[in-house]
Amino acid sequence: METDFVRRLLATLPHDDRLEVPAGDDAAVLRPPGNRRTVVTVDMLTEGVDFLLGGMLAQGEPTSGFPPPATAEQVGRKAVAVSLSDLAAMAARPEAIVVAVALPRQGGRAIADEVAKGVAEMAAAYDVAIAGGDTNAWDGPLVVSVTAIGSVSPGRAWRRDTALPGDLLVLTGPLGGSLLGRHLAVTPRCREAEKIAAQFAVHAAIDMSDGLALDCTRLLTASGVGGVLDLPAIPIHPDAVRLHNLRPGDGRGPLAHALGDGEDFELLLAMPPEAAAAFVNADQNQLLAGTSMQPAVIGTVVAEPGLYGRQADETIVPLAAEGFDHAFD
Amino acid sequence: METDFVRRLLATLPHDDRLEVPAGDDAAVLRPPGNRRTVVTVDMLTEGVDFLLGGMLAQGEPTSGFPPPATAEQVGRKAVAVSLSDLAAMAARPEAIVVAVALPRQGGRAIADEVAKGVAEMAAAYDVAIAGGDTNAWDGPLVVSVTAIGSVSPGRAWRRDTALPGDLLVLTGPLGGSLLGRHLAVTPRCREAEKIAAQFAVHAAIDMSDGLALDCTRLLTASGVGGVLDLPAIPIHPDAVRLHNLRPGDGRGPLAHALGDGEDFELLLAMPPEAAAAFVNADQNQLLAGTSMQPAVIGTVVAEPGLYGRQADETIVPLAAEGFDHAFD
Repeated sequence: METDFVRRLLATLPHDDRLEVPAGDDAAVLRPPGNRRTVVTVDMLTEGVDFLLGGMLAQGEPTSGFPPPATAEQVGRKAVAVSLSDLAAMAARPEAIVVAVALPRQGGRAIADEVAKGVAEMAAAYDVAIAGGDTNAWDGPLVVSVTAIGSVSPGRAWRRDTALPGDLLVLTGPLGGSLLGRHLAVTPRCREAEKIAAQFAVHAAIDMSDGLALDCTRLLTASGVGGVLDLPAIPIHPDAVRLHNLRPGDGRGPLAHALGDGEDFELLLAMPPEAAAAFVNADQNQLLAGTSMQPAVIGTVVAEPGLYGRQADETIVPLAAEGFDHAFD
Repeated sequence: METDFVRRLLATLPHDDRLEVPAGDDAAVLRPPGNRRTVVTVDMLTEGVDFLLGGMLAQGEPTSGFPPPATAEQVGRKAVAVSLSDLAAMAARPEAIVVAVALPRQGGRAIADEVAKGVAEMAAAYDVAIAGGDTNAWDGPLVVSVTAIGSVSPGRAWRRDTALPGDLLVLTGPLGGSLLGRHLAVTPRCREAEKIAAQFAVHAAIDMSDGLALDCTRLLTASGVGGVLDLPAIPIHPDAVRLHNLRPGDGRGPLAHALGDGEDFELLLAMPPEAAAAFVNADQNQLLAGTSMQPAVIGTVVAEPGLYGRQADETIVPLAAEGFDHAFD
């Protein structure tokens, strides 16, 4: 008999009322909440690109080996998290996931158990039903693909192509240096997005997966507008400073890390000025108990295409849309 | 800029009314048809296991190289087809797909174009919206993962765990020898399933992905019942005979190929006897113009667990639940 990752993943799960037909059949049948739209996204993580598999993450600074290696459990968590982050960027409520894996034939059972543990933990933490999956064994490295299904009220999804000139660009938290370890402990802004959507006007949104400069350019280009980032206002994560100090000779300062590193999974929102002010000035603890959001206005949407940065001395410089590149020939 | 498989996949597609927010955003937003359930399934194909990549499929008998190599376009078509087949096995109407790929860094662009072509062709043929995807480049072989989303009326999905003793087991077409090439030209029984569901009572269903003996056992086990297959009644595909003749010394006759080969993607239905008789005796051309369905009653569901075969001489033999095994250690 097949040694089935999916069966192991599902073995300990209680009945989920959202599933009219649970996982384990040819497909699962979901009961969508009344008068809601279905939101769907997929992300695939591949060994050697998105993670290096290799035991426990070192607690301190990485010494040998950078970026730090991941456990298969972390890979499972991250695979779910990055798909949920896409739902957050649509202001969609997560409802269900399906998971497909390609497992190395050697050691696959142990890896499967760890990945399943991470997937189940993240599904529980974000209250999503596990609606099925597909198990493959092969002579290649680990691949994990997660499709996330969410719901949103008709016409209420945050799109990336609807930013307007005059909008302010608001970021939900600091960026940069995620490869020091945060890239393995992704916290999708699902609950935060739902709270923000309920209280503030948002014209467009995108999540920070491949780097601020690249992801912001995607939002601006899709909307047919441009943007000016207020460079000193961009919140820089302490990890960006640490990473710069670890590799001072590479010519990339903390701001460059914040602009280009990616894997932060904060949200970038284009909001009308009054909504942006209300959001960043709101008592964050009252807005969302237990959140670590630190929203900041970091720029302005303008009519002319292109991405620019305003430096501390008020000079304007063009910014390259650089970030993580999924290149192939 | 990222050379994006998904963008290339979507470039030529017209607007699809089912998508409130089309692919290209963080996620797509689907308008589900009124008062329908959402059905979701995922399948992943990996190079070296599910296909061998290598130019055009030889038209004649395979000489060197078995199974025959696939084009990337065929891989794209098949990846969509196997997920749609899962929807067919639920009697769900296909609505949308999302596609994640891991592309070899070398030659990835050409492969991406071919896979995209195959995916787009199959999406058009089965009238499904392409709701997004994820592009990855890596130093590994080609991986394609397709999540299919369908719809079905509440309570009307065909489950695999609801077969009843006394049901007849009905197969929609002949089996065996698919590796001679049919495994690269999968025809999911989506329209057929919808027609059957509208006209005949079906207690349980599964698609033939890993072999009749294994998939039938899955249905019977999930339903807590057993089954007796009428072995001479199992329709054997001419390819099963050809494959046997090509490899006469391997001890596997045409029936063994029909029972164990898999990748046929016919449907196995557990139906009350009167419904089964009405279905197999119906004018198939009237039931579904242009179908190649050749339904046949191949066995009976019994209360006692286990899978057995009734031979031509009426003796009963146990059947092993053998088929394609996604094994790992």
